[in-house]
Amino acid sequence: MKQFTKHNIRNSLRRIFLYHGLLVRLNVMGVTRVFSHTIARETGVTPEQVRKDFSEYCIRGNRRGGYTIETLLHDMEALFNRDKISNVVLVGMGNLGLALSRYGRFTLRGINIVATFDIDPFKQKIRSDPNVYPMDRLQEIVNRFRVSVAIITVPEISAQEVCNELIETGIRGIVNFSPVLLKVPGDVVVSNVNLSDEIESVIWSVHKQAKEESTL
Amino acid sequence: MKQFTKHNIRNSLRRIFLYHGLLVRLNVMGVTRVFSHTIARETGVTPEQVRKDFSEYCIRGNRRGGYTIETLLHDMEALFNRDKISNVVLVGMGNLGLALSRYGRFTLRGINIVATFDIDPFKQKIRSDPNVYPMDRLQEIVNRFRVSVAIITVPEISAQEVCNELIETGIRGIVNFSPVLLKVPGDVVVSNVNLSDEIESVIWSVHKQAKEESTL
Repeated sequence: MKQFTKHNIRNSLRRIFLYHGLLVRLNVMGVTRVFSHTIARETGVTPEQVRKDFSEYCIRGNRRGGYTIETLLHDMEALFNRDKISNVVLVGMGNLGLALSRYGRFTLRGINIVATFDIDPFKQKIRSDPNVYPMDRLQEIVNRFRVSVAIITVPEISAQEVCNELIETGIRGIVNFSPVLLKVPGDVVVSNVNLSDEIESVIWSVHKQAKEESTL
Repeated sequence: MKQFTKHNIRNSLRRIFLYHGLLVRLNVMGVTRVFSHTIARETGVTPEQVRKDFSEYCIRGNRRGGYTIETLLHDMEALFNRDKISNVVLVGMGNLGLALSRYGRFTLRGINIVATFDIDPFKQKIRSDPNVYPMDRLQEIVNRFRVSVAIITVPEISAQEVCNELIETGIRGIVNFSPVLLKVPGDVVVSNVNLSDEIESVIWSVHKQAKEESTL
């Protein structure tokens, strides 16, 4: 179990992000106080889970008459370290890499893709922001921008090799969009985003529900 | 809690996909049998969890001397209904929508994006495969291709409106890439993929680990 908590993003952390998204929306709507059961209902968990997660991440807010949204948001932003900008590199400028490198919302969250990498010399020549570099510039750029997190959007076949190279340059966290379970040392954090899995699991759930309804 | 199991993709289902990915890899490597503790170690869960998940989804395979990989894969493929192709639509042809509509791996998994939609007439005129349609063709195409699942890649501001339109045409499952918690009826399945959350949670975990190490 120890390995698990090291390698994988904790589910509680995922839920904190979910709560945060909801609170931002409520805040924009002018709501100032919220009960744990409201947060629970809107995010699909139990009120006990919400309180337990808040406690795990030391997120306070007076419970009498509900939490103060401003306090919750303040504690969460402090937790996320949002005042600080984090430099990130991206490897693999296919369609998905290109889309992510141009995704405007990352900068709103302090995520700054400083450079992208691709082995294709043609892609390196295209003028783009951020720039596309050959892999032999990786170490230099990781050092210069003090990068500790990388996004992998290369094809399945090269994912592990790219992962190894990244870790050698000092990368400590990887967001992996390639459909491979990467092998990494115990002190490296990996989050796998498998797009096919996401879509297939929705298809599966819809079919299952339809089948259940037809047998009622 | 009932609402939760309806709206959200079950974590156990996510893990089944994770196990499946590992088993496919082992199979390719020529491995024929596997123990639950191996599956557990490689996917970051406990062996008990693996056995519990297999039992929940009626995935068999003799436990004496390990599971037979072929049997496990057979049961999983039957579960996923992989022999059947599922038609899907995608709404929002920005960079991310474009990347997803061209993502070659979906067809390997029986996911067939039959049409994409965008309100921009310029995008509708571009020759692309799949085609880009205006929103007023949605109902016709959903009917013609018997589509029950949709991917939303529109900006935050129009996500809920697009979601409502999709549900009106008969869509029962949504994969939402827009950073909004969608409101849907109880019989509609939603899976939220928040790309900023994925990256920020890795950044956060790396920072936390670095802090812990520096205080040792």
